[in-house]
Amino acid sequence: MTTQTQTAVIDQLSKHRTVRFFKDEPVSDDVVHTILNAARQSPTSSNRQTYSIMVVRNPETKKKLAVLAGNQKHVETCPVFFAFCADLSRLDVACEMHGEKHVKGLESTLVSTVDAALVGMSVNTAVESLGMGAVMIGGMRNHPKQVAELLGFPNGVYVVFGMCIGWPEWDKVPNVKPRLDESVIIHHEQYNTSSPVPQIEAYNQTMADYYGKERNLHESAWSGPLANQLKSPRRENLRSELESLGFVFK
Amino acid sequence: MTTQTQTAVIDQLSKHRTVRFFKDEPVSDDVVHTILNAARQSPTSSNRQTYSIMVVRNPETKKKLAVLAGNQKHVETCPVFFAFCADLSRLDVACEMHGEKHVKGLESTLVSTVDAALVGMSVNTAVESLGMGAVMIGGMRNHPKQVAELLGFPNGVYVVFGMCIGWPEWDKVPNVKPRLDESVIIHHEQYNTSSPVPQIEAYNQTMADYYGKERNLHESAWSGPLANQLKSPRRENLRSELESLGFVFK
Repeated sequence: MTTQTQTAVIDQLSKHRTVRFFKDEPVSDDVVHTILNAARQSPTSSNRQTYSIMVVRNPETKKKLAVLAGNQKHVETCPVFFAFCADLSRLDVACEMHGEKHVKGLESTLVSTVDAALVGMSVNTAVESLGMGAVMIGGMRNHPKQVAELLGFPNGVYVVFGMCIGWPEWDKVPNVKPRLDESVIIHHEQYNTSSPVPQIEAYNQTMADYYGKERNLHESAWSGPLANQLKSPRRENLRSELESLGFVFK
Repeated sequence: MTTQTQTAVIDQLSKHRTVRFFKDEPVSDDVVHTILNAARQSPTSSNRQTYSIMVVRNPETKKKLAVLAGNQKHVETCPVFFAFCADLSRLDVACEMHGEKHVKGLESTLVSTVDAALVGMSVNTAVESLGMGAVMIGGMRNHPKQVAELLGFPNGVYVVFGMCIGWPEWDKVPNVKPRLDESVIIHHEQYNTSSPVPQIEAYNQTMADYYGKERNLHESAWSGPLANQLKSPRRENLRSELESLGFVFK
């Protein structure tokens, strides 16, 4: 039996490109509504739906979020900004309705984070199917408490990542980005524990070509900047700020 | 300007159904390869690609994973099982290549977890586009250490969730599952802090209808079983097991 291995969806996923520059064209409420409600059918652990989606159009709010994200101008300039939130607050209410206390732990923190990521990925896919573009904004985790205050969150909610959407300025959209060789990402039956150094070196060359860099390959391509970033702690405030927002890590 | 608001992708996302029963029909390596490589173009934070994908077909391995997942028979009976792993091990190697130490923290734990979720969601979408079906398996977090040993993981890898895929036995596939009213999930500009109790009560009725339950609505629909589950801690071993696998929560 031969099976079809190509679909419009697979083709679209294969051509994903990150969009940071948007035309000055509106995105209708109707489009937003359709995208979000389609994505809300995504899998969610035990149907608990432990996420919320913020839709932000207000220029002042976007401006403040852009600063909190580390001065990411596209958060301000995009017509619509989404924030995908881990949200345990409704489960608190559901428990109260039955006279029970919601016992949280690391599991609920991870499940709600994953729920938010799943729906966010589906939103990205839906957005691109309309010929629009998007960029996910992990910088929402720079200052989780300030973001929560700005958006009026109750206890039990934090933004896992944001997303700028809009109509792309296609001439500013980068080409499809090469990924690491599949041999170090996809493992059959058992994890391939042979050293990934050769594949990383090859990828450094690939990314140097992609970015048009020709000199200082070792320092300037993938692994060099990574090593330089990862030698220092990142977002050291994250644990205490997420705890203050009601998330548990035990 | 009127904009198209319906696409084949949006239609597909809207109709997602979880599939736990599969026909005894093979899934070719070609299909697996196409699905996974399309999904690998999904967004990944800072292009770090902090995830790996396990492809498991071996009946003995699937049988053991089914038990570890809490006796989920479909993990054993599906033709192909994927495990989406948070994977920080390649970044360790990339840092070593430049004489640096990879400093991990809660941020790297969350980023790698989200990376795995994003690619997993795209795999689900690609799978469904081919007329196949899937179910995500959070039960992989029951015994993270045993799963890691079974699949031969190096330090820095854990399974965020698994996924059974295959050709659906459509007569055993449930209808599209209703979700909570959008007014409690989608928030415009500011989080809607009014009580979600009315929407939860309405959803209890919706889910009772969906499951064909007519009696003991308060106890048997959505919020009742939830409250009963959430009054007890879940996966209390998760923190210590993930730490033993090299993940940090500081």
